[in-house]
This record gives sequence, structure tokens and C-alpha cells, in this order.
Amino acid sequence: MSRVYLDHNATTPLRPEAREAMLAAMDVVGNPSSVHAEGRAAKMLVERARAQVAELVECKPTQVVFTGSATEAAALAVAQKDRHGGRFAALPTEHDCFLDWSEADLPSLFDPQGALNAAGATEFCNWIVRGVGDAHSTERAPVALVAMSAANSETGVMLPDARVASNTNINALRAGTVPYSVVCDITQMAGKVPVAYDGDKRPAYMILSAHKLGGPKGVGALINFTADDPAPMLRGGGQEMGRRSGTENVIGVAGFGAAAEAAHRDVMSGKWAEIEKLRNILESALEASSNTTIFVGKDAPRLPNTTCFATPGWKGETQVMQMDLAGFAISAGSACSSGKVKASRVLTAMGLGDVAANAVRVSLGLETTEDDVTRFAEAWAQKLKKHEARAA
Amino acid sequence: MSRVYLDHNATTPLRPEAREAMLAAMDVVGNPSSVHAEGRAAKMLVERARAQVAELVECKPTQVVFTGSATEAAALAVAQKDRHGGRFAALPTEHDCFLDWSEADLPSLFDPQGALNAAGATEFCNWIVRGVGDAHSTERAPVALVAMSAANSETGVMLPDARVASNTNINALRAGTVPYSVVCDITQMAGKVPVAYDGDKRPAYMILSAHKLGGPKGVGALINFTADDPAPMLRGGGQEMGRRSGTENVIGVAGFGAAAEAAHRDVMSGKWAEIEKLRNILESALEASSNTTIFVGKDAPRLPNTTCFATPGWKGETQVMQMDLAGFAISAGSACSSGKVKASRVLTAMGLGDVAANAVRVSLGLETTEDDVTRFAEAWAQKLKKHEARAA
Repeated sequence: MSRVYLDHNATTPLRPEAREAMLAAMDVVGNPSSVHAEGRAAKMLVERARAQVAELVECKPTQVVFTGSATEAAALAVAQKDRHGGRFAALPTEHDCFLDWSEADLPSLFDPQGALNAAGATEFCNWIVRGVGDAHSTERAPVALVAMSAANSETGVMLPDARVASNTNINALRAGTVPYSVVCDITQMAGKVPVAYDGDKRPAYMILSAHKLGGPKGVGALINFTADDPAPMLRGGGQEMGRRSGTENVIGVAGFGAAAEAAHRDVMSGKWAEIEKLRNILESALEASSNTTIFVGKDAPRLPNTTCFATPGWKGETQVMQMDLAGFAISAGSACSSGKVKASRVLTAMGLGDVAANAVRVSLGLETTEDDVTRFAEAWAQKLKKHEARAA
Repeated sequence: MSRVYLDHNATTPLRPEAREAMLAAMDVVGNPSSVHAEGRAAKMLVERARAQVAELVECKPTQVVFTGSATEAAALAVAQKDRHGGRFAALPTEHDCFLDWSEADLPSLFDPQGALNAAGATEFCNWIVRGVGDAHSTERAPVALVAMSAANSETGVMLPDARVASNTNINALRAGTVPYSVVCDITQMAGKVPVAYDGDKRPAYMILSAHKLGGPKGVGALINFTADDPAPMLRGGGQEMGRRSGTENVIGVAGFGAAAEAAHRDVMSGKWAEIEKLRNILESALEASSNTTIFVGKDAPRLPNTTCFATPGWKGETQVMQMDLAGFAISAGSACSSGKVKASRVLTAMGLGDVAANAVRVSLGLETTEDDVTRFAEAWAQKLKKHEARAA
């Protein structure tokens, strides 16, 4: 029996279009910075990919800065905080690539059901206004730049208010205006749900990862909607219009562009609605085998491919290992944690601390079949029975 | 007539071994941070490549930190300067990825012939001892970390004293000990000349680029010989043992590893001696057509594949364009300058300012043939004659 890969939020297989573009790029010899014909040919590949990525996220090609990962794009955005006039903070449900830079312990904007947490939203606005001190002085500075995901990687839950992560929307939660800029993590949303931020709903920055949408690992992008070029973190040859030095990852970037184009096509043609049906079939089947399992954010706006569920008393880590042995790849918590398996910080922040260590995430891809999810549900139910028998 | 690519120091074609490794890696689905079988398979590819790169540069695998470019590795090394107790400085002949961070205007260690500049060396040591002030205070701090290339990208000239870039050797230039740490740029040397630094000749760090030795563009490494892990510039998932977060460029890293292994094999089997002969044939042919052309560093220890030559009155930029139209890819100055063509900063630093705008670099690769260099020399001689006719 072949293995079933159900961990597409961790990384998803290379799309055929990306593979083909990468193979073609392997034959292009030049350095994009060289002025001769070989260099210009390489440059063209990079610029073509830039246009493809721009189309996916509805921005101008010049607003795309290619990086070596979404993590690097996050760090580059955070490095701009002084331009926004203050400190940086990340919501507690964000990825570590933002949280590790956060200067304030913001409250969760999500309640245990994945709905907007009204108290949290009010507290959030208070934080922004009040500002934060730092270790070296008692002086408080405003929180000027905030990281928030368009869709959470562990739960798939999307930001309330029409899936838009902009200050104007959060501000609408309270009377009055709280000025801050947003860096929006669209790594999980892009390629599954249309990315379209108009006018004043636009965040200042977005971060994006190729390998979450069928491109290669090790390529990302910062999308810069501000009027100024971001100050570079990497200096040197002046590539990416001076915004990120270092010879371009031509093969990887070509793959990213082709994947972005294919992902955009699939989003627009509604392919994910089929996957959403499979996800719902899966959840119904799991629900039928367990009456204690909690499905996180089930009634909230969610990514079509993601389910996160916690079964009290059964460790997520154990479930991942048992399902791996049974031939299924799933995850507990965020996959970008280098083998560390611990209670989900995301669920804890949402007020689900009691079951945060019991959660697993199953994330479907475009090639997932009904047979895959049915087989998974059966295998999981069997393991659950064994677990219950042992626990009894 | 097919084109002749003679710009291998800018970037060199993907080696077949690298291509094969990358193709194989394309079929590995997992995220190296995932604990399931798919994740472990991806992790294995990264670790295999780490061992291959370690073998090329004679270090332990744990001393290899993969990055998105040598430029990123340079920035990561520079970011460690406080640990070395002071300021960072780069020799004036270094790549912009170091010079753009330099806090001192160091003298050149090379004279116009590419030999060790004794006055420069003395001045250099004085700089280290004297330290540098900064813009904000009159307080001077020692130069604690210095960037120097094992081999210069434009001229191919190697650091004097047995091709070793370590403080002990430079210190030997003067009586007494001047303590500072070295970050050594081996991007051009690695894969062409054996990299072997023993004991106290070891630099603190080395930077390395995959695409200069037949791997893909967009992958690099920092080699860390210090006892401590470098403090990360990119935070998040904790990849690379916490030293560089961000999902690994699995396909690119696999290509880097395979290229490093093949490059190591070719260095050890003496393949570059053949290329050196071709380079010398080329220089003799060019010399025969022009009695004003200066060959930079011709009598100094040089990379076997590189020649840098200046013809007074004939702009390097023009030569590059004329040769491009004639079917030959060469460069003027460093190729990592995003289309900017200006007088070579390296030659100016060496005291060759008069002809710095008239220089071009021809760099050979392992597949370069005698026919290639003969045809180049003929075409160049023709263009030179036309130039002289116009100038007369």
C-alpha cells in the first residue's frame, strides 16, 4: 500500500509546471548580473517569475522582492519597523519567524472556536496605543508594525472580516483609529484562496513561500506595498533593485514563478472546493469514531484543506508517530520546528491549552483523493480504539 | 558558430552530478523539519550534502551552515563581530558583500603586480592595532574581524604565503602579534585549488557559494571554525541547528553537495592544471597581438582559470559588449554588480587606477577547450585592431 501524504501545510509536492521551469532554467548558464547574452537570459527568467508571483498576489512586479525563504522575508519586514515609527509585535498565533522578533505579548484575536475574540481585540488595540517598553529603558514606544496571518498554518483559521489582514479592519473593531502597519503572512493562504487586498485594506508587507504552493523549498518573497524600498538586510552586489543582495536563485525562482502561475489558475478555477469537500468528509468520518475529539475552528472561516483536531488524553506526538507507521504523513503543531514536538502554542494562545498537546493537523493537497481520506479515517479510528483500550 | 562562455568566475554551468542530485531531490516530498518518513527523507538529503561540502573544505559537517548565498554567509559572519571584540573591516579588494559592511578603509595588501604590498601590510597592522572610531563617538575600537579573499574574483590573485588566509600569516609580516579574526572568502578558490587550513592557520569563518563550483545559484554556506555557534540573523523554526532559520533549500542544497563532491574530485585529480595551460596559451596569444596590454598578477600566485588584462585607451565595458556580439561571454570587473559597469575597484585599490576602466576578466571552466581560447584571442585581436584604427 503506498503512503498517503496529508501534510501539505508543511510542504506540498513540486508542481509539474515548477519542475519543468526548473529543468529549463538548469540549462541557462549566465549570472543575471552579467551584461552578456547568457546573463540577460538568466535575468529574463527571474523577471518572468517576478511577474508570475505578482499576478498571484495582485501586486506590481516591482513590489516583489525574492528571498531565500518566507522566514527571511519576515526578518526583512521586521527590520523596517523604525520606518513605521516604533516597535514590532506579532500575534501569539503567528509563526516563530515573526514571534521570535516580537517585542510585545499581544493577546489572541481568536477565541477557542476560532472566532474573533472581542475582548482580545480590545486589549490588542490598547496595546497598540499604550506601546511597549524595552529592557533598557522605561520609555514606551508605540507598536508600529504588527504581524498577522491571513490564515493560520496549524488550524487554517483565517483572519475575521472577509479574510483581510489590514489595520482598517481590525480598527473597525473599536471606535477611533489606531494607526499601525501590518505585515501579513500569506504563506498558507496564497494558492488556496484568492489574495486580493484593495486600497486601504492592503497591508504594508506580505510574506510568501514557494514550497507551500508547489514551488521549491528555499525560495520566498517579501511583497512590499509601502512607497519606499525596504532597507536591505543583505548588502553587496545590489541585486533585487538593491533590496536584497546575493546572486539570485535562478532555478528556484523560475520554479516559484511557474508554481505561482499554476496555483493562481487552480484557485481561480475553484479546484479547492473539491478539496474542501474531502476535508469535510474526513471530519465527519473522524467525528463518527470519536465523541471527545474537538475540531478547532470548524465553524470559523478556514482554509479549504486544513483540519486541526484534538483528542483529550491522546498525545498529538503519539498520533503522528502511529499514523506515520501506518503509512500516513500528518503533523502535530507547526512543521517548521526542526523536529521539536511540543504542545501547540497556537492552540494554547486560543485558550485551548488543555488539549494543545493532543492536537494533530491533517492538511490536504490538490492530488488528495476520497480514498486517501477514507483510509486515513479508518486507520485513525483503529489507533484510537487501541489507545482507548490501553487507557481503560 | 556556437557561443563560447568564458565567464566562469561569474557563474559556471551546473555540473551533471548536481543536476542529477537535484532531479532526485525533486521527488522527495517532505519538509526536513517534519518527523514522519517523508520529512526524514528530506532531512537525509540535506545532511548528505552537508557532509559533501565539509569534505571539500576539510571541516566537520556541523561546521557547515547552509545559507541562501555567499552574500548571506558574509552578512552572517559580519554579524558576529561583537563576539570577536570590536569592529569589522574588509580589504579594499574584497567583494561588496563584505565591503558594504566595512568600518575601516584598509590599505591594499597587493601591489600593482599582485605581490604582497609590504607598505600596505605594515599599514594594515597599524590599522588593526589603532582601531577605528565610529560616526557617533570619538572612541576607537579595535578591528576584530577582517574579511580577506583566498583568491580575488577579478584577478584570480591569491593571498600571499601559501594561499593561506589566516591571521598568523599576516601577523608574521611584522614583529609582534596583532590579534584579529579572519573571515575568508573562498568562493573563487573552492573547487579550483585545495582548501586546507590546518590548526592556527584556520580562519574563524569561511564563505562559500554553490554556483561558483557547479552547483545551483542561490545556495551558499558559512563555515564556522569558532567554538561557538554563530548567533542567527534569521530567526524562526530553528533550522540549521538554530543558526539559520527557514525551510531548507532541499533541491538546491542537494545540488550543492553533489557539485562539491565532484569539484573536490576534480581538484584532487589535477584537472585544473590543463585549464591553467589553456589560460597561459590565451595570455601568450593576446600578448602577441598587443604590446600595451597589462596582465594583472601574472607573476603572482593565481587561480589556474583566470586572467585579467587591461588595454590602455580601450574601455573594458566596450570590450565586453564587442566580444558579446562576437559570441564570447566575458566580464569587466566583478559580475555581481547588477548590470553596473564601472572602473574596477579592485584594480584601483591595487594601484592600477589608470587602467582600471580598461580591464576585462576572462575566466575558463573545466569544459573550455583550446579551440575556445584560440578563437577568443583571434576575435579579440581583430576588435583591438579596429579600436586602434578608430583611435588613430
